[in-house]
Amino acid sequence: MDIFNFSSGPAMLPKPVLEQARDEIMSLGGIGMSVMEISHRSKEFEKVLHGAESGLRRLLNVPDNYRILFLQGGGAMQFSMVPMNLLAPGMTGDYVLTGAWGEKAVKEAAKFGNAKTIYTSVADGFRSVPEQEELSFSSEAAYVHYTSNETIDGVEFKYDLEAGGIPVVCDASSNILSKPIDIEKYALIYAGAQKNIGPSGVTVVIIREDLLKRIPDGLPALMDYRSFAENDSMPNTPNTWGIYLIGLVCRWLDDQGGVAGIEKRNIEKAAVLYNALDSSDGFFIGHAKREARSLMNVTFRLRDERLEDLFIDEAESLGLSGLRGHRSVGGLRASIYNAFPKAGVERLVELMSDFAARNG
Amino acid sequence: MDIFNFSSGPAMLPKPVLEQARDEIMSLGGIGMSVMEISHRSKEFEKVLHGAESGLRRLLNVPDNYRILFLQGGGAMQFSMVPMNLLAPGMTGDYVLTGAWGEKAVKEAAKFGNAKTIYTSVADGFRSVPEQEELSFSSEAAYVHYTSNETIDGVEFKYDLEAGGIPVVCDASSNILSKPIDIEKYALIYAGAQKNIGPSGVTVVIIREDLLKRIPDGLPALMDYRSFAENDSMPNTPNTWGIYLIGLVCRWLDDQGGVAGIEKRNIEKAAVLYNALDSSDGFFIGHAKREARSLMNVTFRLRDERLEDLFIDEAESLGLSGLRGHRSVGGLRASIYNAFPKAGVERLVELMSDFAARNG
Repeated sequence: MDIFNFSSGPAMLPKPVLEQARDEIMSLGGIGMSVMEISHRSKEFEKVLHGAESGLRRLLNVPDNYRILFLQGGGAMQFSMVPMNLLAPGMTGDYVLTGAWGEKAVKEAAKFGNAKTIYTSVADGFRSVPEQEELSFSSEAAYVHYTSNETIDGVEFKYDLEAGGIPVVCDASSNILSKPIDIEKYALIYAGAQKNIGPSGVTVVIIREDLLKRIPDGLPALMDYRSFAENDSMPNTPNTWGIYLIGLVCRWLDDQGGVAGIEKRNIEKAAVLYNALDSSDGFFIGHAKREARSLMNVTFRLRDERLEDLFIDEAESLGLSGLRGHRSVGGLRASIYNAFPKAGVERLVELMSDFAARNG
Repeated sequence: MDIFNFSSGPAMLPKPVLEQARDEIMSLGGIGMSVMEISHRSKEFEKVLHGAESGLRRLLNVPDNYRILFLQGGGAMQFSMVPMNLLAPGMTGDYVLTGAWGEKAVKEAAKFGNAKTIYTSVADGFRSVPEQEELSFSSEAAYVHYTSNETIDGVEFKYDLEAGGIPVVCDASSNILSKPIDIEKYALIYAGAQKNIGPSGVTVVIIREDLLKRIPDGLPALMDYRSFAENDSMPNTPNTWGIYLIGLVCRWLDDQGGVAGIEKRNIEKAAVLYNALDSSDGFFIGHAKREARSLMNVTFRLRDERLEDLFIDEAESLGLSGLRGHRSVGGLRASIYNAFPKAGVERLVELMSDFAARNG
């Protein structure tokens, strides 16, 4: 039985990517050495790094005045690095909170300067995202930070936020590469790789070059974006395996018609699931407001919450894994990133219908 | 032709480890999902993490009052984290410099407090390590930091440094697991994985629990050892693939007779190579002084340095890869970590003898 893994991340990887990684693991392109064994300064790894970098640049249409960097530490490391690099004394970091990750980001930023929550949907249980017009920014803002998709709450921005010239910083960990975005609206985008980009252990940072000039001296060397920008992402040994996988994922995405192609499928996949919620006569209750629904993380509960464990057990027995909601909020969550097959959504929807009929 | 990869890191992995990783990459232990695809909070990954942790604990005989943590950022990230966590105001970080990595460590530490070089062998070109008796420490030392093996210079401590009760911090990136050490002599040992432990992208930190009490509040969350100690190394998503590989490497080391068994082989391998240098009538010249010679990185030059490129080319054509010395010092370097096969050293020694005969 095929296993469909709804894990919120690390998440499913495309099967052809795993197969190629398997076939090349002993000998990368016939060189007789694993990609994990070669020097990061070798010409073979240079090719790997360049492949991943150019793949992302091509897919996301990243202009030349942006650098694409590969770091470590996950998305959460950026919660520190963004303010350490960009939040100058006397200025504010403006934070837009639409879920648990945004909350963590602003809490961490407050260690390093004036981190200001300029919008939060906490009062409605993080079920919505603001319209562009609802937001106003501090006059002394060094940047505006938002989370384009909140995995725990299942809400997603449907537009590229604009801040009237203030640098926009976006945590796109959970929806990068899922659809076209307009990079030029952003000053810095970061993403932990383990949802749509590759395995865990690599963080992608796309940064507009002029931001590098604002960075104060004296930061921990590997917390300073310049260390990576000036050394081809290799001030020290990077996660070579992870970067290799990113290159493979980029080529797989090319085969899917790029981010425009994958967006179509993502819309279709999510629609199947949201339709099942909406047509369940309230047996299943979606968490997010309709207009904020994430294409990546579908969060829902059962009207009778006591049935949730049973539902999860039945799902597991059908090869539908990882449906339990985040431990902080409970309920259920189906994470359906780029690599998640539509067949898995269909199997889940069948179970939902059947389960509701039996327990309704 | 088998390729023997003398790269200084990322370095060769044991073939059985790569083979098992290949065989399990699509489905870890028959669960139908790759280890890269499962949640780091799943019971399957918990087992992987525990396997790596207990493997290191068993091999290095780590007592219960030490924590074993898996971080990201490589050894170099520890150059910042050690002083940020341990270098209290009014105290010194005492640094023993025996090569390029120690130099980097003290330079980075100086950003965060009073980092003091209490010993350096720079004057003799980093060809030696001090005797224990040559060292004296600051009365206000918060810790003493040293590098147990210097990869670029090829010198290695043959003893566990003691500092009369001052916490000893050791960068063991390039010789951890190569021989038995007495963990109780150390307060903190760290190591980037990519030489003897696994692939790049994971850093192992072994820390005595009492040190956790000294850490100041307000550090970047992922720069605070407590974040890892209090959350089973998972304050956020770790490098799951890297940790999985570490578990496999530990089991392979068990099969080699543990660190005592591998030490015997390491001594034999290095002896073959050092004997070749010593019996070359000065055609090849070892860099390190005899008593400081590293078992992991054999650094040498040709008497006629103009022949070095030719030698490296001939070596490449025989499947002997990665022999060029670090770009900062030139010359040649044979890195022969745990997983490097003796057959590779023998092939190199044959070439050396033959090359000397032809060009002597």
